[in-house]
Amino acid sequence: MTTTPQTLFATHEATLRQAVEASRSRAYWSAFPEMPSPRAYGETAAADGEAAFAAYQGKPFVLDQPGATGTAGGERSPFGIDLGISYPVSDIDALLTAAKAAMPGWRKAGPDGRAGVCVEILKRLNARSFEIANAVMHTTGQAFMMAFQAGGPHAQDRGLEAVAYGWAAMTAQAPAARWEKPQGKNPPLVMDKRFEVVGRGVALVIGCATFPTWNGYPGLFASLVTGNAVIVKPGPTAVLPLAITVKIAREVLAEAGLDPNLVTLAVGDTIAKDLALRPEVAIIDYTGSTGFGDWLERNARQAQVYTEKAGVNTVVIDGTDDPKGMVRNLAFTLSLYSGQMCTTTQVIFVPKDGIQAGTERMGFDQVVAALAGGVDKFLSDPERAVEVLGAIQSDATLARIEEASKLGTVALPSRAIAHPRFPEARVRTPLILTMDAADEDKYGHELFGPIAIVVKTDSTADSLERAARLTRTRGALTAGLYSTDPALIEQATDAFVEAGVALSVNLTGGVFVNQSAAFSDFHGTGANPAANAALCDLAFVANRFRVVQSRVPVVAEAAQ
Amino acid sequence: MTTTPQTLFATHEATLRQAVEASRSRAYWSAFPEMPSPRAYGETAAADGEAAFAAYQGKPFVLDQPGATGTAGGERSPFGIDLGISYPVSDIDALLTAAKAAMPGWRKAGPDGRAGVCVEILKRLNARSFEIANAVMHTTGQAFMMAFQAGGPHAQDRGLEAVAYGWAAMTAQAPAARWEKPQGKNPPLVMDKRFEVVGRGVALVIGCATFPTWNGYPGLFASLVTGNAVIVKPGPTAVLPLAITVKIAREVLAEAGLDPNLVTLAVGDTIAKDLALRPEVAIIDYTGSTGFGDWLERNARQAQVYTEKAGVNTVVIDGTDDPKGMVRNLAFTLSLYSGQMCTTTQVIFVPKDGIQAGTERMGFDQVVAALAGGVDKFLSDPERAVEVLGAIQSDATLARIEEASKLGTVALPSRAIAHPRFPEARVRTPLILTMDAADEDKYGHELFGPIAIVVKTDSTADSLERAARLTRTRGALTAGLYSTDPALIEQATDAFVEAGVALSVNLTGGVFVNQSAAFSDFHGTGANPAANAALCDLAFVANRFRVVQSRVPVVAEAAQ
Repeated sequence: MTTTPQTLFATHEATLRQAVEASRSRAYWSAFPEMPSPRAYGETAAADGEAAFAAYQGKPFVLDQPGATGTAGGERSPFGIDLGISYPVSDIDALLTAAKAAMPGWRKAGPDGRAGVCVEILKRLNARSFEIANAVMHTTGQAFMMAFQAGGPHAQDRGLEAVAYGWAAMTAQAPAARWEKPQGKNPPLVMDKRFEVVGRGVALVIGCATFPTWNGYPGLFASLVTGNAVIVKPGPTAVLPLAITVKIAREVLAEAGLDPNLVTLAVGDTIAKDLALRPEVAIIDYTGSTGFGDWLERNARQAQVYTEKAGVNTVVIDGTDDPKGMVRNLAFTLSLYSGQMCTTTQVIFVPKDGIQAGTERMGFDQVVAALAGGVDKFLSDPERAVEVLGAIQSDATLARIEEASKLGTVALPSRAIAHPRFPEARVRTPLILTMDAADEDKYGHELFGPIAIVVKTDSTADSLERAARLTRTRGALTAGLYSTDPALIEQATDAFVEAGVALSVNLTGGVFVNQSAAFSDFHGTGANPAANAALCDLAFVANRFRVVQSRVPVVAEAAQ
Repeated sequence: MTTTPQTLFATHEATLRQAVEASRSRAYWSAFPEMPSPRAYGETAAADGEAAFAAYQGKPFVLDQPGATGTAGGERSPFGIDLGISYPVSDIDALLTAAKAAMPGWRKAGPDGRAGVCVEILKRLNARSFEIANAVMHTTGQAFMMAFQAGGPHAQDRGLEAVAYGWAAMTAQAPAARWEKPQGKNPPLVMDKRFEVVGRGVALVIGCATFPTWNGYPGLFASLVTGNAVIVKPGPTAVLPLAITVKIAREVLAEAGLDPNLVTLAVGDTIAKDLALRPEVAIIDYTGSTGFGDWLERNARQAQVYTEKAGVNTVVIDGTDDPKGMVRNLAFTLSLYSGQMCTTTQVIFVPKDGIQAGTERMGFDQVVAALAGGVDKFLSDPERAVEVLGAIQSDATLARIEEASKLGTVALPSRAIAHPRFPEARVRTPLILTMDAADEDKYGHELFGPIAIVVKTDSTADSLERAARLTRTRGALTAGLYSTDPALIEQATDAFVEAGVALSVNLTGGVFVNQSAAFSDFHGTGANPAANAALCDLAFVANRFRVVQSRVPVVAEAAQ
């Protein structure tokens, strides 16, 4: 049987319906196994993935797309390996022309057909998770397990979530209707109507350096499923994971009889800015610095712009029944990927008089010492530590750790750790500082990387007021609270809801404030300056397409 | 029983569910009777409405809202009566402060409660349809029947449609979930999650001069139901219909124990611009000129801006089986409310070699003559004509008719008609011109009012190309096509879908290109320059709120 969008929809319809139902119920669900086990992925999957990754190195990346004018490359793994891969540079006009030309056929595949194709792409990506994990690891500096999970199945789940939302939104109205309006004793007015879903134009996805697939897939798949062509512009240091993604997407599109130029890769120095201002570009998804995010929002006026930018994530500690669990949980949060997650806690507010911890009081200094000790202990075994910390992605972050250590009182210095397998890897443990509440000019803006600050406040009320205000003014993707007082928890929840940030309360076990689960947790809210959209909700997909109708009378209508 | 948002939801839930289902199926449905009959509205409704309207005249409009600093007024009916009503002018800071303060309580009413309150407001508005019809008639110049239907039940249906979309979007995810993630042989991770819908901020509705309620209600109710406070700024010549609306909304809110300052009225010379730039204003809905619409989109950067602006609506005539029906249909379209609808056809493309009309050929000149004759005959009885034409809303439109008559060859001059009951009413019949296709600089921009141009093209292919291009560049809310060739209809439908405009094919009976039915027809598409949104679709509501979550572990989690 020939593969068509319709056959792919038939194949994947059950998955799609499960994804829609999960995103409605918000209960636990995942389409893609998160453990890199041979049982789930096949006995040879790990070795195959490593071999595929090795085969890319030192060569041009083969991607047969229009307008090739040269090549660009230069990725270096934060674990200390030059990848030596060059990618085709394409002429912008050629990319845009090809993208536009591909759209009418994509429109005619319809919502079902497009969803089928998108799920097929995701399934193929899933089968290549080990290959992508190696690519993510050696571009972002994530340790392997995280690169596999966040870069593979979790990113694929986020992509599927976007497909599910897009498909549900596109099919929120019937594709056709017979409209019959009674006219009293006269015959009714009868019209046949058709409602076509039309993409907005060419979509641009601007990838980030730390989570190229996890942060890139939602926009990519939300735009694609809703009928747009997508140009993917990776961050210059993390091209490979998205180049592989584009290649797989193009293969699936071609196999389904569609124009592969619906998904293309853009590399080059100024290409993000150049593309962003083109009238053909109707949608932009961006993850990265506030500077360029604000520039896009200000200047790419012709486009619908979705941005995730910087923020200051806070945790308020009022008290806890389980101080050890709290410290263990926070130590993992601060250590994971050396704090290079947009969701990592930066500021921990603790009252100057300390907290109630189980049956005992813990003074401010004791809380700081427990945190510092907890992180230090958690990272005491280098072999284990590097599998949590990964490597520092950029020189800028490396320099920031150094500079930040002068900003406050150092409670735990950042240490370099020698990586047992990658001698040139730049591995650093978290820096923990203490500051006074009045030092907001120092702690009150994003210090990206393994930098945490315990801030001494007057009281929990003061902590909450400061956390909520920082969220409103500086943005945040996450907030945390530890308290044993139900009334305070309720009041604080209300305050964080009003401030517009997702709150995690009393995490002491295996769920972490910096992790969010597709189909259940919204990543970002769009309600504070850290992001103007959430991954994924209806608002993230509903503006990526339009419904255009036509109508025609069915029977002879009554003359007036 | 005390009235609460929840009791109102219980009362109106069935209506709401019907509205949601209708907007999904797109079949015919209406919640509010469109005929001003005593059976539907009560024996005394007509007289009561007229009396209520009379009672407003020559007096201050009583609206107990914060920050009153003075009054403004000066509405004059296009039928020649000074209304003599003055409205309270409120201090902007007071309005915004009151609006912000009202929002937390509104959030806590929840999606169901808010929807219940909104439907109750609409039901109250419906009961006052005669009063509102008089207010609409004597501010916009619509004849009574149209003022009743478009200003009353049809506007209320559009409002209900917005409430239904908003409610459906807000409840697209469960309000709470238990999330349970398996952990192999270990106990699962279990979290309780809450998902709260939060409004974006203060919403501003900027009303228009011709359809204050029909164009105002979608934005008003979409913003209100999704948790925002709404400030309603009517056009200065059409305050009364929206002032009555605000008053009724405030009454319902107060009765339900909510803060009436969730809906307030803003009048004053520069108040639209002043409000639009305030940081508290997160949403703006606007209907009116392209100039101010573009200004809002450019400058009100802090807000989500929904605009409906100018366009050039086209009809392409290729051929017809029913020339009489076609002419009758177009004559009504051009005459209704003197062409002062944003959906009225302005340009009619006819091939220079004429069209096939039934079994005969009709030359270009014959088509023009048939149209001109049809309009002239349709409006030959002044008594009947004024009930279709209504009156000219603005001096600018009156002047435009005069100027436009010099732009091309006059096929039918515009005539003044003396209104049998309102001697000072300014009533004008449509002006019909002919032009060559090359005169796009004359016909290719909006000429608002009773001005239609029959444009001579090389062929139907030429007509279609021009119509699609005008739609893409100048915008359009409607397009029409007459053809007996199924292949051409299919091809043209495709072209208009790509151009992003709603198409009506072969209308010869009681459905008109300039009319759209709530719950079935989308008004505008958001896919061409005439509007950046459609009334109503998911995109119109999904960005008016955010979902903010909180989560808390349920049971002791496994230690790592």
